[in-house]
Amino acid sequence: MQEYLDFALEIADYAKDEILSSFYSSKDYSFKEDKTVVTEVDRRINHFLVEKVSSKYPNHSVLGEEESTFNGEKYVWVCDPIDGTGMFQAEVPVCVFSLALVEDGVVIVGVVVDPFLNKTYSAIRGKGAFCNGKRLHVNSLKFGDLGYRLNYEMWGSSSYQTMGFAMKHLDDVKVSSIGSVARSCMAIASGKFSCDLFPGEEHGNCDIAAASLIVEEAGGFVSNFYGEKDRMDQPIHGAIISNRVSHKKVLELIRQDKDFFK
Amino acid sequence: MQEYLDFALEIADYAKDEILSSFYSSKDYSFKEDKTVVTEVDRRINHFLVEKVSSKYPNHSVLGEEESTFNGEKYVWVCDPIDGTGMFQAEVPVCVFSLALVEDGVVIVGVVVDPFLNKTYSAIRGKGAFCNGKRLHVNSLKFGDLGYRLNYEMWGSSSYQTMGFAMKHLDDVKVSSIGSVARSCMAIASGKFSCDLFPGEEHGNCDIAAASLIVEEAGGFVSNFYGEKDRMDQPIHGAIISNRVSHKKVLELIRQDKDFFK
Repeated sequence: MQEYLDFALEIADYAKDEILSSFYSSKDYSFKEDKTVVTEVDRRINHFLVEKVSSKYPNHSVLGEEESTFNGEKYVWVCDPIDGTGMFQAEVPVCVFSLALVEDGVVIVGVVVDPFLNKTYSAIRGKGAFCNGKRLHVNSLKFGDLGYRLNYEMWGSSSYQTMGFAMKHLDDVKVSSIGSVARSCMAIASGKFSCDLFPGEEHGNCDIAAASLIVEEAGGFVSNFYGEKDRMDQPIHGAIISNRVSHKKVLELIRQDKDFFK
Repeated sequence: MQEYLDFALEIADYAKDEILSSFYSSKDYSFKEDKTVVTEVDRRINHFLVEKVSSKYPNHSVLGEEESTFNGEKYVWVCDPIDGTGMFQAEVPVCVFSLALVEDGVVIVGVVVDPFLNKTYSAIRGKGAFCNGKRLHVNSLKFGDLGYRLNYEMWGSSSYQTMGFAMKHLDDVKVSSIGSVARSCMAIASGKFSCDLFPGEEHGNCDIAAASLIVEEAGGFVSNFYGEKDRMDQPIHGAIISNRVSHKKVLELIRQDKDFFK
């Protein structure tokens, strides 16, 4: 396991340098079919991962947001080279690199790097979550407590009305949409945010695979919008990423929300 | 004018150091009546400004989000010591210092500092907007163009339904809520974001006074939700801060939105 983590950290170091060195340069970017932005840096980091995995673990697959390669089902490296590319392109320092190793659908190693604050978050299943060597813990706020922050993502074609849900609870909790679910999850793992609602489906696992392990190893809980566990090497059915203590309440409120499921 | 700008920059330097040095320390914070968070750092920066103005410009007033002093109506220093305190407290590097000099209700000098990217944004009315010495320009995207980003703020007691408006236009534009209107405005002045909807009223001028001048000097436009210009030394009626070219369209869409005005 430690060997896999070391390998992930090596890729993360490369990604960190790439993201930082290109942050201010005029970005070579284009729009994908879903109208989200993609830069050359996303592609370069993703390609670096594919090359490295092919040479070191020839029977492992890669599932990346920009490039993938199939070499068997058991082990899959699931990666979002830049989670928060829109913010990266806009020069708002809220975006992270994310990489997970998934074994039979379950994340066993996860690394997320915030290049701007020079923070490396990591976890091995069962061994706790760490940031720059320091153990992480979620907070213990209940939904509605002062200081409870609910972050959400949403876009035009989303099947789940996370934004509408957040809007209905403006009197209960603080709401934001900072533009990177993995960065928001690191705030949850650090006890700063309390919950994130992420409507990802196809490729949605790329954004949250590493983050979901890190949050759970920090004491949090992750499920899809139906309260079930999704495999992290396949499309997902949205995600509630929480501090655990408020998970049941959020799930209950979602179930009661007639508008949530399109 | 240059003298006022130099004075504002001196306060900004102090604020930058305070924000950076306390970013990671466990923050001495409390909740205000409106449930927003305030830290000791907010209070310290605001108090420093009050002291400095009293000694250098004894006939100028200060209107700060945490502390004010009245010495006449003509000149008012309008300040938000940390715009984005919630993100500051959560260790998300999206918060800025903001200071404006308002003469008879009109902003004549504005400074916004992003401590994390070490960027100082400034403007003197009629002389253009600059970031670290480089001239700023808004973008020329129309509402609905690819890459158009609409940022919004909203909280439980808001009178204007900025979030509902943003949600209705998820198919047209990218939407976010990064937690600091002044930081979002700097992205507009830099051509990265295209519009911000801010439901501020009482003290709302503290958040956007400096930013509104910087955006307009970068080629943008600012009005309240009724299309009018508000004084910046008094409560405001919300704000549309835009790249100018899309302003009329946004205002028109708001007027057509039956749910926007509570």
